[in-house]
Amino acid sequence: MRIKKAVITAAGERQRRLPLQELVDRDGKARTVLAILVNDAVRAEIEEICIVVRPGDESDYLEAVPEQRSILRFVEQPEPLGYGDAIWRARNFVGGDAFLHLVSDHLFVGCESAGDTATALLRLATAEECCVSAVRPTHESLLRAFGAVSGQPVSGYPGVYRVQSVLEKPTPTLAEQKLVIPSLRAGHYLAFFGMHLLTPLVMEILDELLRSGATSPQGAASAHGSRVTLSDALAVLARREKYLALEVHAERFDLGSTYGLLTSQLALALSGQDRAEILSLMVQLLANEQLRPLETKPQ
Amino acid sequence: MRIKKAVITAAGERQRRLPLQELVDRDGKARTVLAILVNDAVRAEIEEICIVVRPGDESDYLEAVPEQRSILRFVEQPEPLGYGDAIWRARNFVGGDAFLHLVSDHLFVGCESAGDTATALLRLATAEECCVSAVRPTHESLLRAFGAVSGQPVSGYPGVYRVQSVLEKPTPTLAEQKLVIPSLRAGHYLAFFGMHLLTPLVMEILDELLRSGATSPQGAASAHGSRVTLSDALAVLARREKYLALEVHAERFDLGSTYGLLTSQLALALSGQDRAEILSLMVQLLANEQLRPLETKPQ
Repeated sequence: MRIKKAVITAAGERQRRLPLQELVDRDGKARTVLAILVNDAVRAEIEEICIVVRPGDESDYLEAVPEQRSILRFVEQPEPLGYGDAIWRARNFVGGDAFLHLVSDHLFVGCESAGDTATALLRLATAEECCVSAVRPTHESLLRAFGAVSGQPVSGYPGVYRVQSVLEKPTPTLAEQKLVIPSLRAGHYLAFFGMHLLTPLVMEILDELLRSGATSPQGAASAHGSRVTLSDALAVLARREKYLALEVHAERFDLGSTYGLLTSQLALALSGQDRAEILSLMVQLLANEQLRPLETKPQ
Repeated sequence: MRIKKAVITAAGERQRRLPLQELVDRDGKARTVLAILVNDAVRAEIEEICIVVRPGDESDYLEAVPEQRSILRFVEQPEPLGYGDAIWRARNFVGGDAFLHLVSDHLFVGCESAGDTATALLRLATAEECCVSAVRPTHESLLRAFGAVSGQPVSGYPGVYRVQSVLEKPTPTLAEQKLVIPSLRAGHYLAFFGMHLLTPLVMEILDELLRSGATSPQGAASAHGSRVTLSDALAVLARREKYLALEVHAERFDLGSTYGLLTSQLALALSGQDRAEILSLMVQLLANEQLRPLETKPQ
């Protein structure tokens, strides 16, 4: 299994402008979020990237990645029919190959950098010839933003789990009933990191789910209505064949949350070459009395 | 003199995408830089705003200001002929009226908020019936980014100066020869804040300078080549009629500098309703070992 393709979904209604926002990367260079994600994929030796966009967004997105335009392909999601449909739009690009999948509304930051996370996923998927999802122990209070898995540790492979079931955005109660992993701290579950290594079987399953007009197999318990999600497809996958989860130690930041861009930028900068400069900047701003709200100013 | 118009220049090559970047405003709402600037003007009771853009940018900019579209007008600067030319493009919009002018590559933050700064400029200009520029004591090391003025304090008006001369981006040596203000700390000069209250006479002077094909009156000493700048026009203005500078106590942040957006966002957030949340966020990120570069991690 040789993995040279990646799919980035960027057609979500809320997320549309996020990939165009500019951040300063760990190396001190200003790049758009999309360019940072593309760089992450390229560091994992990905050679061709398909971006799923809303109709009309291609030119803006192309402009947002000045350095790697030649490896970008675009497909449009004509209607906002959800996450599962968005990935499925890349089925012709993917063809018979396994592919890396990144979401475009998160930024992946860590000293084990995002590039390394993608590489680790690729290595495990290549060795085991199966789908692998990056996961991160996540407190139950945050599960409303993520898919999460239950699974058994694979002996001899630290941080690797054989996935048994997948739930999209589970409530803490549901997670406690179905997703407990004994080795994790209480109240913590293995939630998706926003990065997956998928085989073409996922496209087949998405095709089945979308064609059958299936409401989500999780029915009323799911928060996403009747739209097919990637979690729905991965839940089917886990029942059909080997599917692994790899615990990663990087951080992911939701760019769409309030202060998501600020948090991501601070995290990037603190983990990069300009850490000292950023620490100094933080102290200067904290000391600046012009910026202090009236009620906190010394009298 | 009733001031109801504003002109925002956003056609600079480097600055083109900056007004479209999203920040969380002091009230916790996500807005583009352009929408924040438009809000600043509206708080000063401006009723109509002309944005000078590069050809083709109007629709993106319109989308960036969802709440106040009806008061926006656009004029294009067909070729990148500099700052003076950009302002001059708004001459038909301005007509015979005085107007507020904001640059689009700076963000104005302070407890004396930007809205208040604009209001203070308007009040002084209305009372004195003349042009007023907001200025801020600025260290000589930063003068390469700004125009700066020399002037005499106006007695009875604290923080108000009668401007005698204007230099665009002076060197520290030139500033020491020509721009010393005795009441300021050593090495500090009155540099432009990025906000001006201008009379139509400025348009006339720009017209003269642009028609005469004048290279900058400051000749070889200026860093901006032969393009006419606003400072060039204001230097002529200061010789012809009363022109005041008002020292303001807010901060301006250059969005185009490295970490300019980060600095602006932190400053906005620290001076706004979410200060406590941001302080907590800063501490959490500092404590996160995943984000610490290897060489600074505890062994």
